[in-house]
Amino acid sequence: MPYTPGEQPKEQQYIKLNTNENAYAPPAGAARYLQSALEHAQLYPDPECTVLRRKMAALTGLHEDEIIFTNGSDEILNFAFMAFCDADTGAAFPDITYGFYPVFAALNGVPYAEIPLREDFTVAVEDYCRIGKTIFLANPNAPTGLSLSKADIERILTANPDNVVVIDEAYADFGTWSAVELVDKYENLLVTGTFSKSRSGAGLRLGYGFASAALIKDLNTIRFATNPYNINALSMAAGLAVLEEEAATRAACEAIKKTRRQAIEAFRALGFDCTDSQANFIFVKHPHIGGERLYRLLKERGILVRHFSPERIKDYNRITIGTEAQMQVLLNTVKDILDDENCTSKTNNE
Amino acid sequence: MPYTPGEQPKEQQYIKLNTNENAYAPPAGAARYLQSALEHAQLYPDPECTVLRRKMAALTGLHEDEIIFTNGSDEILNFAFMAFCDADTGAAFPDITYGFYPVFAALNGVPYAEIPLREDFTVAVEDYCRIGKTIFLANPNAPTGLSLSKADIERILTANPDNVVVIDEAYADFGTWSAVELVDKYENLLVTGTFSKSRSGAGLRLGYGFASAALIKDLNTIRFATNPYNINALSMAAGLAVLEEEAATRAACEAIKKTRRQAIEAFRALGFDCTDSQANFIFVKHPHIGGERLYRLLKERGILVRHFSPERIKDYNRITIGTEAQMQVLLNTVKDILDDENCTSKTNNE
Repeated sequence: MPYTPGEQPKEQQYIKLNTNENAYAPPAGAARYLQSALEHAQLYPDPECTVLRRKMAALTGLHEDEIIFTNGSDEILNFAFMAFCDADTGAAFPDITYGFYPVFAALNGVPYAEIPLREDFTVAVEDYCRIGKTIFLANPNAPTGLSLSKADIERILTANPDNVVVIDEAYADFGTWSAVELVDKYENLLVTGTFSKSRSGAGLRLGYGFASAALIKDLNTIRFATNPYNINALSMAAGLAVLEEEAATRAACEAIKKTRRQAIEAFRALGFDCTDSQANFIFVKHPHIGGERLYRLLKERGILVRHFSPERIKDYNRITIGTEAQMQVLLNTVKDILDDENCTSKTNNE
Repeated sequence: MPYTPGEQPKEQQYIKLNTNENAYAPPAGAARYLQSALEHAQLYPDPECTVLRRKMAALTGLHEDEIIFTNGSDEILNFAFMAFCDADTGAAFPDITYGFYPVFAALNGVPYAEIPLREDFTVAVEDYCRIGKTIFLANPNAPTGLSLSKADIERILTANPDNVVVIDEAYADFGTWSAVELVDKYENLLVTGTFSKSRSGAGLRLGYGFASAALIKDLNTIRFATNPYNINALSMAAGLAVLEEEAATRAACEAIKKTRRQAIEAFRALGFDCTDSQANFIFVKHPHIGGERLYRLLKERGILVRHFSPERIKDYNRITIGTEAQMQVLLNTVKDILDDENCTSKTNNE
């Protein structure tokens, strides 16, 4: 059962709002160590990722042995399934969430429970208490963009002292409080993150995990049994430079949050249901046009968004927050489509 | 059971001849696409690795669908264990070979047979005929440097039509004929390779596989179930540029082969047993000084080589071919050690 990534078309220049990439390029300063790294590329990269871990430790206040870097956060998520689940200890995650969780579970022969989100797509916290399984929760969740509070996450951590709780913070920098501050309090917490979203580095393939030294040691055992040199020297060099550009990262996140607020307002004004997304995408459905049809009509007009087929969310589309200019084109195109489909007047009459 | 990589010391500047890295940096031209790749690093890398596969197809004469790229060749070796072995179809490889094979087998719950090399470290080809297991053979083998002939490999392929035979050519560019020319003839052949050795790119983490389209499809199923974006955009860009510098790659290989010939002659003149290595390392033992002792005395003098503890090879050291200058320092140091240990006169008296 392979994972299906978002379309990466080569035949045409689309406005790509389908894979939640950052609207902005990495800061120019990200190049500063690259030439030197290439000039030493005949050497194996540091399997301990020392400089990256040291810098991340300084940024987060964690110890270096509470940090691991991986080839994208997909790798650490797979490692977590390998290290903390087996045929007896299954996994639990929402029915609507990141599509790779069931793929990793199946790959590793791990039984899993897909726990339905509530009708409004929020997580029913009580369903995760004393569950006896390894828990995977994206916060904010994808594709809904909805987030869990600190109190909710602490309740789940406290109710499952013998199971690892993985909080996948791929999108956390766009508005959610981070569970990193709980790492020293809960030995069963693993927080995962990525450079792919807020740090404009999907191309770098840099993911990471924060957890107690004991959990990180388990993850490193898996890493050394699969690919000790999992982070290449060029991504390591660019990643370090990106971490030295925190102000640029924060500024890009603020710009995206502002564009998101504007987009949510505009889509709601057009009659769309729109979740209160805390991520760099919005999740929208219109009462009078199917999700798959809107996806297709947008694609015909040169804009790619992401449609998912499961019954509960088939009326929705997930739309990445692009630049303000891209979002303006999107909105104009959506208006045209609603007009063409005779959806506008119906909406206005409601 | 994690793999133990060669030491990567940070506390002291050693002459590092312990991890078979290339003696030379990548060609300067390898930088030509790097800046542009970084400027677009907010986007996911092409999961099909299209441009790299196209270039490699042109270089090898294979079809693009007979080629896969991986995060180092360790990743494709692991994929091969996942795709072509299971509890029923075990693996077979020599008792003395790349240390990651048993690690991958154990990781994937695959039973394995470690087939003893002959007394002279050559592969007993008859032992691999009609064996009913997935076969892994490094050619040339590590740490011995000895290679199998085309006739031997074809005999093994023909005798195991229902099993995949993996020929690991990490070191093939340093002197061994390549099995790539057999890919179109044998549907059960997987040839693996890496940029880490002959292409001066250990830091890039670029490995690859050549096989029938059917086998590559199986490997891609595993890849899409673990990490579809396994190759980052920077390594992809540098890798393409390196493939455009074939003349530089060949020149570096020739320089290393010349240094290897000189090193083998010099070590034999000092009384060492030396295999006929076809790789970028030599494998040497001295009749009057233990392998572990020589390793330790060299380390004390600032030179790292690789010693392995298994009984059959504990008297040996594997020494990477460095630059001519590094090898001169090595030889002078070895001579000093033999004098200090009173090994020289004994050797001369034999």
